[in-house]
Amino acid sequence: MKVWKINGKGGPEVLQCEERPDPTPAPQEVLVRVRAAGLNRADILQRLGVYPAPPGAIADVPGLEYAGEVEAVGDAVQAVKPGDRVMGLIGGGAYSEKLVVHERETIPVPDAMDWAQAGATPEAFLTAYRAIFLEGGLQPGQWCLVRAATSGIGLAAVQLIRAFAGFSLGTSRSRERLETVVPHGLDVPLVDGEGELPKRVMEHTGQGAHVILDLLGGNGHLNENLQCLRPEGKQVVVGLMAGREDQINMGLLLLKRPTIRCMTMRSLPLERRMEMAQLFQDRLLPHLLRGNLKPVVDTVLPFDQAPESHRLMESGTHTGKIVLTV
Amino acid sequence: MKVWKINGKGGPEVLQCEERPDPTPAPQEVLVRVRAAGLNRADILQRLGVYPAPPGAIADVPGLEYAGEVEAVGDAVQAVKPGDRVMGLIGGGAYSEKLVVHERETIPVPDAMDWAQAGATPEAFLTAYRAIFLEGGLQPGQWCLVRAATSGIGLAAVQLIRAFAGFSLGTSRSRERLETVVPHGLDVPLVDGEGELPKRVMEHTGQGAHVILDLLGGNGHLNENLQCLRPEGKQVVVGLMAGREDQINMGLLLLKRPTIRCMTMRSLPLERRMEMAQLFQDRLLPHLLRGNLKPVVDTVLPFDQAPESHRLMESGTHTGKIVLTV
Repeated sequence: MKVWKINGKGGPEVLQCEERPDPTPAPQEVLVRVRAAGLNRADILQRLGVYPAPPGAIADVPGLEYAGEVEAVGDAVQAVKPGDRVMGLIGGGAYSEKLVVHERETIPVPDAMDWAQAGATPEAFLTAYRAIFLEGGLQPGQWCLVRAATSGIGLAAVQLIRAFAGFSLGTSRSRERLETVVPHGLDVPLVDGEGELPKRVMEHTGQGAHVILDLLGGNGHLNENLQCLRPEGKQVVVGLMAGREDQINMGLLLLKRPTIRCMTMRSLPLERRMEMAQLFQDRLLPHLLRGNLKPVVDTVLPFDQAPESHRLMESGTHTGKIVLTV
Repeated sequence: MKVWKINGKGGPEVLQCEERPDPTPAPQEVLVRVRAAGLNRADILQRLGVYPAPPGAIADVPGLEYAGEVEAVGDAVQAVKPGDRVMGLIGGGAYSEKLVVHERETIPVPDAMDWAQAGATPEAFLTAYRAIFLEGGLQPGQWCLVRAATSGIGLAAVQLIRAFAGFSLGTSRSRERLETVVPHGLDVPLVDGEGELPKRVMEHTGQGAHVILDLLGGNGHLNENLQCLRPEGKQVVVGLMAGREDQINMGLLLLKRPTIRCMTMRSLPLERRMEMAQLFQDRLLPHLLRGNLKPVVDTVLPFDQAPESHRLMESGTHTGKIVLTV
């Protein structure tokens, strides 16, 4: 099988295609012939050498999500059989023609989804679901502020919020790109830089957002976000696109009494990836089947163009997911 | 009745004693003849004009906790009768000879407790209990880092942690005062400034503290605390004794994936004060009756020395609670 190996750290050129022997599934594992692998910002960070794989994951091949056909199963596998279409999260190694995963961490792919859509689904929807609903605890009727809304996770977030009867505010620096998010379910588009964000959030929500899904992080955004939150609201940090360092006014913390929660999907150990896959089937799949949730694919590139796919992601001009089809 | 009114903002001298008419209990309320009122740092901040009373609370008289005898009850009161000894939290106004509270927010005072002990109990134990166990979720066998351990809340915290089968690490700048906390249940005393705190915490806990009870806040303490936390640990901020502003490294947030939660007791609306009073009776009172929890009273002063009591608290030399007896 072919894989894209990270050969040293650096630009997209450090990705090098190489041949490896096919992996063999353990008794409870399945061998997947990968058909699509969604890109994530973490792939870029890993290539740059600043985001190593967690223990136990394939460390030198990027890729945190896959979709494909089951090619073979271990002796003890119960619910998955060869030919099944599956997708899922993985700690690393999805830029590959084949991979092995535990059967309990696979998610069935609906018949109506093509491979690119399936490859664009697990990370965005599970990250947004876990952040907003499991960590943030958003309830029907409540407000969630999504920063930024044009990202793959942001686009999944606004769909989930509407599907689960919440209301969304979403930010982006670009009005033009933000407007493209509205048809996906964004209730209130708010362009960054067009006046004080906290004031505009209050105009729509009264006392502020119940939950903030934050992909921006620092560089001045932290206090701005805390000002957008209602008393005892929750900010869930899943990315640091705008910077790692920030100043924090802890006086504001005792006034607002927020919860700031930080999470990554990649750090989840096997049993929690399994749990997320089961939650997906229980709670997200019904909405995916009814069309309430639709992965937004910006660009599909063939497997041999992995370096080009990284250049495209780094240019920052996409709205939605970039996917490699294998 | 006599009350201590905050007459303008400033030093202890702005506290002025004045006569007011006795309050009248509503149908579900009780009139309490106050016998003791514990001091809290919030009283000082309120006197300085930087911590106003929440809506609905008595705004111009300090005092967040009381103990006393029930003198009269409203027509609809069910479980409390004149002569009962009660204690509790209040949003303001405990520096007073009398006050009215809802019967459901009162806590019975054990026979063995004197008034000064009772007046020193509600705020310290309920704050520490809520922070560590309700917000922080500490479980038996887990580690809690208490910063700082010599405060009234810190002394309540180390007792609660031991009573509920957890383990405590506690910091203070003074080795001498920290040693006095050990007999109250502190497992590991760690003097601030005697080497890298995160390293010393790891030596005792392996991967770090599960929960941090933080009364210090900013001025460099935030990143230090996050480094002491284990992955997915919880820091609960209840005070800002060391400062309000801080720099935060959000890269550390995604590495440790902590929850930072901020809370105050004073901001609780009536129904949540009632809930805390009921939790006290259900979970803390049994341990108080068995002697597993003992309020630590540093100094008792008579009611007419309220300004002196503030000077003593501001000198910062006490270990445990300062109480006015009325």
